[in-house]
Amino acid sequence: MIKVSIIGSGNIAQHLIKAFAKTADIEIVQVIARTHTELLSLFAEYKIITNYEDMRQTDVVIIAVSDTAIAKVSAQITLKNTLIVHTSGTIPMEALDTSNPKGVFYPLQTFSKSKEVTFSEIPIAVEAENGESLLLLEKVAQSISNHVHHIDSSQRQTLHVAAVFVCNFVNHLYQIGNEICEANNLSFELLKPLIVETAHKILTLSPSDAQTGPAKREDTITINAHLKFLQHDTQKEIYKLLTQSIIDHGKKL
Amino acid sequence: MIKVSIIGSGNIAQHLIKAFAKTADIEIVQVIARTHTELLSLFAEYKIITNYEDMRQTDVVIIAVSDTAIAKVSAQITLKNTLIVHTSGTIPMEALDTSNPKGVFYPLQTFSKSKEVTFSEIPIAVEAENGESLLLLEKVAQSISNHVHHIDSSQRQTLHVAAVFVCNFVNHLYQIGNEICEANNLSFELLKPLIVETAHKILTLSPSDAQTGPAKREDTITINAHLKFLQHDTQKEIYKLLTQSIIDHGKKL
Repeated sequence: MIKVSIIGSGNIAQHLIKAFAKTADIEIVQVIARTHTELLSLFAEYKIITNYEDMRQTDVVIIAVSDTAIAKVSAQITLKNTLIVHTSGTIPMEALDTSNPKGVFYPLQTFSKSKEVTFSEIPIAVEAENGESLLLLEKVAQSISNHVHHIDSSQRQTLHVAAVFVCNFVNHLYQIGNEICEANNLSFELLKPLIVETAHKILTLSPSDAQTGPAKREDTITINAHLKFLQHDTQKEIYKLLTQSIIDHGKKL
Repeated sequence: MIKVSIIGSGNIAQHLIKAFAKTADIEIVQVIARTHTELLSLFAEYKIITNYEDMRQTDVVIIAVSDTAIAKVSAQITLKNTLIVHTSGTIPMEALDTSNPKGVFYPLQTFSKSKEVTFSEIPIAVEAENGESLLLLEKVAQSISNHVHHIDSSQRQTLHVAAVFVCNFVNHLYQIGNEICEANNLSFELLKPLIVETAHKILTLSPSDAQTGPAKREDTITINAHLKFLQHDTQKEIYKLLTQSIIDHGKKL
């Protein structure tokens, strides 16, 4: 059994605790967190610690804290011969301030506390300083996911930028759709089948083949009617920019 | 059994032919189309006609052609006492140039030829000039969908604008994600679980609660690193505009 400790109490830390609890291959030895309240339903209280000095020896320590805290947190670890990894999409492996072997364990998913995820389907990008560490990290990742990939720090940053477009920005467009509905007394429920189908289409069609709508058709009558309808400046700007980009892409094909 | 004819041979026409073929409540009497090739696998050739004069009497005629052709097509129908409807999200019901009762039958979905859809889950927005027509149109819609809604022309246009944001623009962001991956030798496959989860989250969380990422956290270090990484001007502009909009939304909460 591989011994793992987790530092952090946020979304990723909580989802990792839940996922590792389901596998016999991993023992979570301790969770290190400043606040315990959010972890009490997930993990035995006596194993949740606050002081880095109280950390017991493990094979791997996963730092699941905010990007800006990673270097500082890693500097406080006093363990020896332990693989120390972070879970960030953007921070390079080298940012880990530690005399231990370093690595990255980046689950490519959007985590919200109140939404369960199927970890087995989540791609995990792993990276490590040496072959032995990589092998160990692979085993940890494979214990919870069927999609483990070796991805270096530069590729991981690329992936994170792409993820911002297809996840964070996409969700913001859902929010704008919701606002347009609410402002006009229409239920956002009406849009949900369309939202799900738009995502599912991508599993079998390329985004270019899946594109539909007035911009794709260069239907300027509808586009102008929509721009006239939109009252909010930012919504108008987003509509114009994305419409033009779709039209420009169509011309390149 | 309700007798229906369909005018058109595009995506919506094809998906409607397939959906009606599965229900015993509807008989598709004829399909009127300029070109037959794409319909031959879906419908008996002898029932596919080209001339409007050959149209047989039906209860409903569904005009599933491009927005700009709706008025012209409707003017060519010589039938009497037949409910004539179009399938557009944007065109008002009154645009139908016909002496017959008018209506709208708008399935709120993204249709691509090579992607099957589950029609029972698709919301259909119906509108008609009078109660009798509305009742008939409801029956037609309920024969293929469990989500039939009365929605007037003004609400329908609102819904269409919202749909452009949550479907057409979202798909374009998938395309940009794909391009970022391709330009850096990463497989777009890696992003697919994230894309699907981002859509599924919306079924249980509000878009505002589901938002994650550097813009939501106002993580300017990551945002600036991403802007530096992006080489394509339009990608940069889209990144800036959507990031600022997410930040502004966070401040309003």
